Amino acid sequence: MFDPVEKLKEFVRHASVSTDPTAKAGMAGARDFIAGLLAEIGFKVEVVATALHPVILAERAAPAGCPHVIIYGHYDVQPADPLNLWSSPAFEPEVRDGRIYGRGTADNKGPLLTHVTAVARLLAERPDLPLRITFMIEGEEEMGSPSFPKFLNDYRDRLKQADLVLLSDTGSPDADQIVITCGLRGLVLSEVRVTGPRTDLHSGLHGGVLRNPIQAVAELCASLHSPDGRVNIPGFYDDVLEVEQWERDELKRLGGDEEAYRKFLGIPAFHPTAGYTPFECTRYLPTLEFNGIGGGYQGEGSKTVIPSKAFVKISCRLVANQDPVKIRALLHKTIAERMPKDVTFEIIEQHNAVPYVVVPPDRPNTPADQRPALAATFRAADRAIAEVFGKAPIYLREGGSVPIIADIKRELGLDSVMIGLFLPEDNLHAPDESFHLGVMEKGIRASMRILADLADGK
Amino acid sequence: MFDPVEKLKEFVRHASVSTDPTAKAGMAGARDFIAGLLAEIGFKVEVVATALHPVILAERAAPAGCPHVIIYGHYDVQPADPLNLWSSPAFEPEVRDGRIYGRGTADNKGPLLTHVTAVARLLAERPDLPLRITFMIEGEEEMGSPSFPKFLNDYRDRLKQADLVLLSDTGSPDADQIVITCGLRGLVLSEVRVTGPRTDLHSGLHGGVLRNPIQAVAELCASLHSPDGRVNIPGFYDDVLEVEQWERDELKRLGGDEEAYRKFLGIPAFHPTAGYTPFECTRYLPTLEFNGIGGGYQGEGSKTVIPSKAFVKISCRLVANQDPVKIRALLHKTIAERMPKDVTFEIIEQHNAVPYVVVPPDRPNTPADQRPALAATFRAADRAIAEVFGKAPIYLREGGSVPIIADIKRELGLDSVMIGLFLPEDNLHAPDESFHLGVMEKGIRASMRILADLADGK
Repeated sequence: MFDPVEKLKEFVRHASVSTDPTAKAGMAGARDFIAGLLAEIGFKVEVVATALHPVILAERAAPAGCPHVIIYGHYDVQPADPLNLWSSPAFEPEVRDGRIYGRGTADNKGPLLTHVTAVARLLAERPDLPLRITFMIEGEEEMGSPSFPKFLNDYRDRLKQADLVLLSDTGSPDADQIVITCGLRGLVLSEVRVTGPRTDLHSGLHGGVLRNPIQAVAELCASLHSPDGRVNIPGFYDDVLEVEQWERDELKRLGGDEEAYRKFLGIPAFHPTAGYTPFECTRYLPTLEFNGIGGGYQGEGSKTVIPSKAFVKISCRLVANQDPVKIRALLHKTIAERMPKDVTFEIIEQHNAVPYVVVPPDRPNTPADQRPALAATFRAADRAIAEVFGKAPIYLREGGSVPIIADIKRELGLDSVMIGLFLPEDNLHAPDESFHLGVMEKGIRASMRILADLADGK
Repeated sequence: MFDPVEKLKEFVRHASVSTDPTAKAGMAGARDFIAGLLAEIGFKVEVVATALHPVILAERAAPAGCPHVIIYGHYDVQPADPLNLWSSPAFEPEVRDGRIYGRGTADNKGPLLTHVTAVARLLAERPDLPLRITFMIEGEEEMGSPSFPKFLNDYRDRLKQADLVLLSDTGSPDADQIVITCGLRGLVLSEVRVTGPRTDLHSGLHGGVLRNPIQAVAELCASLHSPDGRVNIPGFYDDVLEVEQWERDELKRLGGDEEAYRKFLGIPAFHPTAGYTPFECTRYLPTLEFNGIGGGYQGEGSKTVIPSKAFVKISCRLVANQDPVKIRALLHKTIAERMPKDVTFEIIEQHNAVPYVVVPPDRPNTPADQRPALAATFRAADRAIAEVFGKAPIYLREGGSVPIIADIKRELGLDSVMIGLFLPEDNLHAPDESFHLGVMEKGIRASMRILADLADGK
């Protein structure tokens, strides 16, 4: 049986930066590495071409009627620059103090190899394990997975036979306390561009006679929140499900020091939605944020101009059961209604709308509408994590959006069990990225138990 | 007697771009040219060093008790780029169709030479003219006259003996209709910088818990106007003098087509202050404008960030009798009161406050508090312009701010008579700048009559 740490070093040495067109050798090397490893442990491996970086699809057959789990991961990594801030070279992995350092160790090569190793060990122990396993490993996650929806669509008939997706590409608060992410916020992105006069104007000669497009943008933005922190778009909250008591209870188990969080953010005071704690706001409520605003003179000092144009970039994070298409329509309708008639404007949709995701974990008082295998996996994960890590997992929704989870739900109808294996100090997307080897070894053991229990119908 | 057009060609050939450090020869050449010409016609010329470009001070003595006029002009010009948009080279002046083309022909070498030629002709006819004349010609006007206040202060004792300042560095609507500018708006510039979190944040992980600095800036900006177009700062209008009927009447004489102006601006509709026409708004009312706004992601597409910082640049144009120091204090107080406590902010003053200027022309129903020579000059100008151009001048306030006029009033206590000699089609600050030779010749004759009448006490 291979040593997972040595295998991880080998994996990390391939500089698989998907956004870097000069990193072709690294991408191919990482792909060949993981494809070879899966073939070595008995999987039938296909390398599926896409418009850019291929997806690896590896299957272990099992008798009809066995449960079927898809394990998701990605073999691409973030760029490593600024290189001079690394303590050891980004693509020459090094173990120090119980951690392995290198780009991609935590995101996502280490967590992916955790599951690959678990599968390898389990199959070595039980070659006839009654479990169908499919590895689905993409190479474009760090660029927003542009080819992934088409891949899912192309392979829908095969993949939708599965019972669930298991993955570890989320985080946990510390090495003892694992979080299972059971919800992600959706996302709608729009840009509003306002035009006033046809050209920039002298603010002395023409000031006072027309509405400045900056004023129009500012008045629009100011209208989009109420003083209590809520989003001021009629109908915005209509479909929002109230957070359930068990979710508030889980969040209390996580703990969290509000004052420490405030200091981390560096703000004088929070501005939460009335009736919710700051930690509840980021996980359970929808938002409308301004991601960028611009217009007129941006340089040092002053220029007495009335600009021709101004813009604002808006994003909304959505929660269950907000439909992103409906919310986008409400946003655009509100903008159109509130825009004064003395300027012109256009609204640019910046991205496909990403729906919220809620994975119903098998908890008391939650609807048990998931497939039996999904419910079984949650029970198995709860047991395995409690035993191996010493504490039961916490089930939380996250504030971010992971489009592939929504893609998988939409294209395949499958829910995802997201077991967090990276930690806040792992420096994802930053210099000195590392992965905690204790978490890796415990993760292997927990994954083995989960998969074994799933096979055994426990 | 010299030919003013040939002299203007000579003047324009010196590329006196004050903001261009490589244009030293052009600056020196233009300075030497005008100093030499004034010496040639009998003036005692001093070249007064400043921190950057010297001021030319040229005096013609006259017996004690004579009226004393200062004629202001500037020998520096705007940069000429983009050079490829000029029909003939910017610094190789050329006469075509009754106009002389070249950088600085209209701003300000042509209008300045109009008065120099008038003085030369008048003194040739009447060597003993009982009029004290001082030319005061600076070289930093196109860079905002940074050295000029100190020069005025240094020479205050000599210059404040004068009765008035005469200049032509403003515009008129067409070659037959001269405007005498009798008011300029003041100017206050500030920048507000708002900081939210200490660094840019992921809008998914942290969205909903804090006030985005773009939101804070937008809410501030949106609060600064009322729906009726007025500035919403308590006390802002307290000292504003209502525009007098004779001023509204003068503006009607100017005419002006609102629909043509709207099309020129390229806006769907005006947004004037309630109760005023668009043309009245730009000349007679104060404003608050946003000259620039920025924060967060400015590029193409989207980036789901909550920015750490956002800013807005604000300018106010002021009218009689608004004190710029008081208005600035009101603006800053209002900003501080309205800024929410969950962000931090600073206010940066971008410029010294420029006061409004009102020159009381000798019109019916206006206070006659000017010195007798000023009143006489207005009467003389009215007569001379009516006779030479065929129409009486129109007396108007302008929307812009000319700091040197306020500087002269503050430092010397002198009012300025501003006779507009450039036309809308002269392309100031743009390629193919030109000056109308008919206006120049009529301007010379009008200036001669004004100066003669002033000398003769008519």
